Amino acid sequence: MEKNTVVMKFGGTSVGSVEKINNVAERAIKSKKEGNNVVITLSAMGDTTDDLINLASKISNNPPRREMDMLLSTGEQISISLLAIAITEKGEKAISLTGYQVGIFTDDIFSEAKILSVKKDRIFSEFEKGNIVIIAGFQGITSNNDITTLGRGGSDTTAVAISAALNAKYCEIFTDVDGVFTTDPGIVANARKISMLSYDEMLELASSGAKILHLRAVEFAKIHNVIIHVRSSFNNNEGTWVMDTESLNEKMEQAVVSGVSYDTNQVKISVFGIPDKPGVAAKLFEELAKASINIDMIVQNVGEKGIAAISFTIKNEDLKIGERVVEELKQSLEIKDIEIDTGIAKLSIVGAGMKSHPGVAATMFSTLGSNGINIEMISTSPIIISCVIKKDRIKEAVKLLHDIFGLGK
Amino acid sequence: MEKNTVVMKFGGTSVGSVEKINNVAERAIKSKKEGNNVVITLSAMGDTTDDLINLASKISNNPPRREMDMLLSTGEQISISLLAIAITEKGEKAISLTGYQVGIFTDDIFSEAKILSVKKDRIFSEFEKGNIVIIAGFQGITSNNDITTLGRGGSDTTAVAISAALNAKYCEIFTDVDGVFTTDPGIVANARKISMLSYDEMLELASSGAKILHLRAVEFAKIHNVIIHVRSSFNNNEGTWVMDTESLNEKMEQAVVSGVSYDTNQVKISVFGIPDKPGVAAKLFEELAKASINIDMIVQNVGEKGIAAISFTIKNEDLKIGERVVEELKQSLEIKDIEIDTGIAKLSIVGAGMKSHPGVAATMFSTLGSNGINIEMISTSPIIISCVIKKDRIKEAVKLLHDIFGLGK
Repeated sequence: MEKNTVVMKFGGTSVGSVEKINNVAERAIKSKKEGNNVVITLSAMGDTTDDLINLASKISNNPPRREMDMLLSTGEQISISLLAIAITEKGEKAISLTGYQVGIFTDDIFSEAKILSVKKDRIFSEFEKGNIVIIAGFQGITSNNDITTLGRGGSDTTAVAISAALNAKYCEIFTDVDGVFTTDPGIVANARKISMLSYDEMLELASSGAKILHLRAVEFAKIHNVIIHVRSSFNNNEGTWVMDTESLNEKMEQAVVSGVSYDTNQVKISVFGIPDKPGVAAKLFEELAKASINIDMIVQNVGEKGIAAISFTIKNEDLKIGERVVEELKQSLEIKDIEIDTGIAKLSIVGAGMKSHPGVAATMFSTLGSNGINIEMISTSPIIISCVIKKDRIKEAVKLLHDIFGLGK
Repeated sequence: MEKNTVVMKFGGTSVGSVEKINNVAERAIKSKKEGNNVVITLSAMGDTTDDLINLASKISNNPPRREMDMLLSTGEQISISLLAIAITEKGEKAISLTGYQVGIFTDDIFSEAKILSVKKDRIFSEFEKGNIVIIAGFQGITSNNDITTLGRGGSDTTAVAISAALNAKYCEIFTDVDGVFTTDPGIVANARKISMLSYDEMLELASSGAKILHLRAVEFAKIHNVIIHVRSSFNNNEGTWVMDTESLNEKMEQAVVSGVSYDTNQVKISVFGIPDKPGVAAKLFEELAKASINIDMIVQNVGEKGIAAISFTIKNEDLKIGERVVEELKQSLEIKDIEIDTGIAKLSIVGAGMKSHPGVAATMFSTLGSNGINIEMISTSPIIISCVIKKDRIKEAVKLLHDIFGLGK
């Protein structure tokens, strides 16, 4: 049974209207008629989630996260039942299931819960009845029967986790673009759809600003070796396949650089004049972690007389709390000065082939430098190189790198 | 613990806006501070349920009932989470629970499910944590974990079933009027709020057109001896208490006639010229029952030569199917003629004291007769007398009876 199972995930824009729900129904029926056991995972329709958040915000600025999850999980429950109605109306059998009904168990970190396990029994018994199985994305249940949500983009993770549990042939993520591109087509006109990517490349692209796939979904896919196909819900074009490196190597020569990504939703905090002694950086980042702030890039320099400076980047929305944490540490860490720079952006090139091509970083830095774009921070890993530059130069920089690495059509 | 438990139910109009949700929160907190374990049962906000039905109707005219229940149950899930947020914002502890989380088990008649049992453990454990417990009305779960709804007005039944399970002091049903009235105040200006009613009287009032309490909720309350207090959510006035007759007798002398009710949502079907032989009426009503049509009143006359006529009333919305069923039986039952009358209404007087006052029916009939209002059908039980009259005389008839039985202020 399992080898014929496919999981298809549709995001909010793909189910934003009755017409679009009917389109999804057609796709599901088509795949069923091709002999597959079909699972559909859905997000909430269009702006439903935002509308519900807005409604709650009229009652409280600080609503309990458990109750927010209770509230927001209704969005997917609406879309799955409507799709089941649409499929039935078209003459095929379908059933909708909530996270609880499937048995998608998570931890109890409300609003950011992590999937611990997915039960298969109910899904299999619905397959046996000939049903297309429609599962609410984005939600799960704790061992105490409380409803959780997985955070924004969590429906991707739901789809991948179900694919892993069912040992599905692949997991199709339907979205409003044709796949993963070499860079943002809004900036670079000749950006090209990438036909295949490794998990690691996709991870780096997702974490460096490309919003097409939820980071955790890719991590989950990598761990459980779930093949992902990112494609458009508005056409039948082949999209981007994401799979493990060995499978990829069999299929194609890896590109040195696969894509250029950027993230303008970052802010840089610099602390100056702290004594260069053990434990200072540890204390700083420990306190930031306690406040649930994710640090992206970190650079530490030691200047004259053993006085250090540390710069790090965080997300824009974490700035207020991050600033407060650093201010509170000012005295105990003997920080002389704190500087906030909201005018920065992160620019990254990603490619599994970079490992064996040492000149890539040099090409990136010299291209930026010869065009007068100053690099403020650098971080590298085997398959990604990221730089922090001024935000107002980011589009220009993306175009330059996309061009120099020959990524266009 | 149980003796201090109160259950409060608020309908859709009582939670129709953020402001109203805040009012409900205040009431809940007040009751908690008075030393009660408080359970709140809610309907969906305002028009939510109608909006969802409307959305589904754009996809299908005949949606699967299971999926409609999946869809509609989100309405209550939204209102309970918002109330939990509102109570928390006001500094009290609260938790919202779905039908599943409580363990409100029902049969699997989707869209009209009946409650089979209510589990207490989760509610009690939340009481122990000091929480006000907010429970989604109108919904339950089958033994197969499928979500059911209890039909329109089902939140009343939820509240009564929970009251029974918890052995609550009383069950308060908050609505948009001050209680149960001697008749519709929209027709009779001096209609009076009834302070106490027996379950049987309330049952008859509910089944004869008074829409204030869901019939099944009253039945449930009678079986489990749950004291109901129907009152307004917009003021603190004492409402109408509904309880068993013995408790009532201790408290007050029973009125001969407690109220006048009417129902204009009825239609009369007459079949003429059928042979007066055993089994004909049985066959007719058997087939109507198979089509899930509830018959209200029935009158059978035998005319000349053993030829019978049967008239019965059904709900307006059942007319199409009812007519079809009767047409299909025309040949086999040797029916000569079928007549549909949509211009009728049912008029009822209800009162536990009627049993011991034999002149009540005569007073009703003569009052109508002397005012030229023709009675087309009559049915009686110990505490109710109902007549079918022309719909265009109904308001006048209600006024006359309300007056003759001295029910006004």
